[in-house]
Parts: sequence; structure tokens; C-alpha cells
Amino acid sequence: MNIGVIGLGLIGGSLALAARKHIKGCVLYGEDQSEIHQNQAFELKIINHSLKPSNYSAMDLIILAIPVDASLEVVLPLLDQINDNTLLIDVGSTKSMICKKIELHPKRNQFLATHPIAGTEFSGPSAAFETLYSGKAQILCESNKTRPDLLEWAVQWFKNMGMQLQEMDPKEHDKHIAYVSHLSHISSFMLGKTVMEKEQDEKAIFDMAGSGFASTVRLAKSSPSMWTPIFEQNQANILEVLAEYIANLEEFKSLMEQKDFKSVYDKIQQTNSIKEILAGIN
Amino acid sequence: MNIGVIGLGLIGGSLALAARKHIKGCVLYGEDQSEIHQNQAFELKIINHSLKPSNYSAMDLIILAIPVDASLEVVLPLLDQINDNTLLIDVGSTKSMICKKIELHPKRNQFLATHPIAGTEFSGPSAAFETLYSGKAQILCESNKTRPDLLEWAVQWFKNMGMQLQEMDPKEHDKHIAYVSHLSHISSFMLGKTVMEKEQDEKAIFDMAGSGFASTVRLAKSSPSMWTPIFEQNQANILEVLAEYIANLEEFKSLMEQKDFKSVYDKIQQTNSIKEILAGIN
Repeated sequence: MNIGVIGLGLIGGSLALAARKHIKGCVLYGEDQSEIHQNQAFELKIINHSLKPSNYSAMDLIILAIPVDASLEVVLPLLDQINDNTLLIDVGSTKSMICKKIELHPKRNQFLATHPIAGTEFSGPSAAFETLYSGKAQILCESNKTRPDLLEWAVQWFKNMGMQLQEMDPKEHDKHIAYVSHLSHISSFMLGKTVMEKEQDEKAIFDMAGSGFASTVRLAKSSPSMWTPIFEQNQANILEVLAEYIANLEEFKSLMEQKDFKSVYDKIQQTNSIKEILAGIN
Repeated sequence: MNIGVIGLGLIGGSLALAARKHIKGCVLYGEDQSEIHQNQAFELKIINHSLKPSNYSAMDLIILAIPVDASLEVVLPLLDQINDNTLLIDVGSTKSMICKKIELHPKRNQFLATHPIAGTEFSGPSAAFETLYSGKAQILCESNKTRPDLLEWAVQWFKNMGMQLQEMDPKEHDKHIAYVSHLSHISSFMLGKTVMEKEQDEKAIFDMAGSGFASTVRLAKSSPSMWTPIFEQNQANILEVLAEYIANLEEFKSLMEQKDFKSVYDKIQQTNSIKEILAGIN
């Protein structure tokens, strides 16, 4: 079985490693626009061969794991070039635009839209690891539009990797993910920015930063090339969520200004029930 | 050597365990206003005996590890009751008010203001562990006002625990810690609140939350009893920092509204340099 991976970063690289583990006799082809990453992927034995457009039609499976703006650009020509039995799996963090983009393509039923809920703040092939997806959620969108035999194969592979599958409408996906992923990133980027701006001349402060600070700004290390297109594609949902977050911060600030610490206590206590929710997250 | 610990939670309990490890032949006395915590501290062998006001004068060292509002209330009567060679160490997250409170007490030179930069989002004696402070920063305030022999003993103990000592003015401490600790907590509490409000009837969403969300809202599990008094005592600094954070979020929102994703990219990229800063944090 020939598997092509377009984009050899954390996400694509880890899928390649998981394919090597779980799909017997597979041969991995890969491409990355960065020559450094392409070479690293060879060195780390993530891929066996370079993937070129001339190989697309020889692939049984192609995984599209590049920033979501680039995916939108390449997905139609890619569908044009694959053979009649190739499965094309997209793994981007936004789902509405890409599902819309391919809806009328004659090979629509060879496409599967997924969002594996897994990642770290690191990027590139060196960040990839085989077990990234084990125990993680895998969102499938419009899987009823994927050819049953191709879908069945993919579902079995995801299950073999230990993923928990969930079907979701693309618009619902984009709305919900704005809360539990995109907002976290913005909150973290801006927290990092606020502290760095203030403290750029005061090195001492970072000696005072503990694990709590490190945890809340961890995501501020995330790649702008990956995240800017996500924010662009999910602009409307994110603006709504961001407005709610700012309103909550303003309310908290107002309570502190009024010295209403009884209400501050209550708000913290209410939020503590997030414990039970987090207990279910890997 | 008799050591009394007032407050047997994560911070006090871990100091008791570290004392048992690093101070030969010490006998540990402890008190907690929660009977459950008091009993847990016995069961977990954190303390040997109950600490009562009638024992205070028999202690060589007393550690004050209760919420910062309670510390302000008890610190003067406590200084009144200790003997002429007892060292009283406070470990709260705000330093200006307590240093001001005790400045004119006749036993001022038996008091040492510290802020060990260590903790987790968990609380109570069961959260305590012996190595919590290993490799962590320990801020000392106005240590020149502490009797040299008592200070020297404390410094040696902190070093034996593997802490990295740093002297800081109490006002400077409170200003800086607002950025690297207090703001992180508020950002996390409000992130948790925003998501929970929106998604309370939509259980599905939390299945979509990954480790990034878990990381940014981890601190939202923190205790309101501990944090509300900190926010109250450091109100002025926190309001300033919170206003800057909200302004940064508003600016980010405005860039997204204007679809200026070039600037969004630049802001993320600038913040990425937090990597180097975080690399130094345990």
C-alpha cells in the first residue's frame, strides 16, 4: 500500500509514523515545501520516498497535513490527479471551507474530512511521534459522503491507532472548536505578549515565573504559519467567542474595581467545576 | 528542633515534608482550620503533633502558610506569642501588606517574608509532596531586617532544599508577580468560565477539547479561598496588568475584524520568542 503525506510537520509526520506502525507493508511517500523538513523526514525514517505530483496517481492514500489556507488551494487539483480508488484525508483544524470547496468535485466520495484533536506546541518532523493520536478524539465531518469502502478502511485505521471517533457537522465543528482550541491559543498568545511587553527590560521577572505561567503561555509557542490561516478561516466564530471572553474579563475587572471580592470568590468557585470536565481530557 | 506549620495545605504540607527530609531530628507540629485536613496530615505523616497556641512559645520555627488575608490577621498575635529565638517565616503570594503590618513589631527581626514560586493547581495535605520546592525560585523580601543568625539558618535550609534565592523589594515583588502569576490565573479562570457558560448544554464540545485547552485552563481549578485574598491584596497591580491584557485582546480582535491577517501573523511570531523565556522555567 502506497501512502503519500503532504506536509511533514508534527501532524503529518506523526500520522506517517502511526501508519508505519499500524498498516502492514505500507510504503511512505512524503513532501514538504521546506527542504530542511523534507531531509529531516528521511533522516528520522518518517518517509521512504519523496512524493511528487507525478506519484499522486500511484497512491492508495494521501494525507493532506499542511496549513489550512494551503489545503484550500491544493485540494481540487489533488482530487483531479488521484486515481479512482485513492482516499484523500484532510486533517486541518477548520472544516467548513474545505468541505464546501470539494462538495461538487466528481471525486467527492474519495475525500474524508477529519480533525484529529491532538498536537503539541512544537512543530516540524522532529516534533512528530508515533503515539501522538493514541487515546485522542478524531472528528469526522460529512463521512456519509465518503465512499463506504474507503470510509470503513479509514475508520478501522483510526481505531487501530486508539482514536475515539465522533461525527460532527462541519459548521458545528468550527463553532465548537473556536471555544476549546482557537480561543485558548489567542488567550495564550496575548498573555505572552502582555508579559513580554512589560518586562522586556526587566529580566528579573522571568525568574519569578513558575509552572503556572508556563502552562498558560505554553500555546504561545505555536506556529504563526499554522495558526494565522485557522484564525482567518474561522474568523466569524472566533470573533464571537473572543468578545465573550473579553466581556468576562471586563466583568472580573469591574468586580475588582468595586472591591466586590465576594463575587470574585463566587466566580472562581463556579469555574472550579471545570475540574470534572478536564478529568476526561488526555 | 520544634517546627510548627500553620496551614497544612499544598504549600505548608510540602514545606513540612521538606523539613522532615532536610532538618535532622526535627519534630513537626501542625494546625489547620479544617479538621479533615488536620487528620489527613497525621495520616500522611506530614506532622507528629497538633500545634496549639499554647505550643507557640516552644517552637524554634513557625511557618505561616494560610491564605494571605488570614495571615494578616494572625501575624501580630503570633509574633507576640513566640519566644525570643523563634523564627517566623511567611510564604504568601503577596508581600507588601504583610511586611507593612509587622514593620513596627518588637520582634520584627524574627520574621522572614518569603515567596516560594512553586505550586500546583491542587490543594490540601494530600496534594503536598517533599520535592515541590526543589529547583524552584525563593523570593526573600527585606531579609536585611531579619536577625542574621535566623536568616542564615533559613537560607541554608532553602539551599538544602534546592531552591534558588533572590532578594526583592516587597512592592516590586507584588508588581512583577501580578504579571507572571496573578494574571495567568485570571486569564485561566475566565477562559474556563467562557467555555463553560457557552457549552453547558452541549456536552459534546468537551470531547473536542485537547491538551492545549487543558493546559490553558489548568489554573482554573485553583482554590478561591487562596486566590480571592491574593487578588484583594494586590488589587492595584492586578487592575493595571488586567487592563493591558484586555487591551491586547481588543487589538487582536480589531485586527481580525479588519481581516488584517498579516498583522495577526506578525503578532504571533513576535510572541513566539517566549520560547526562550519558558525554556528557563521548571
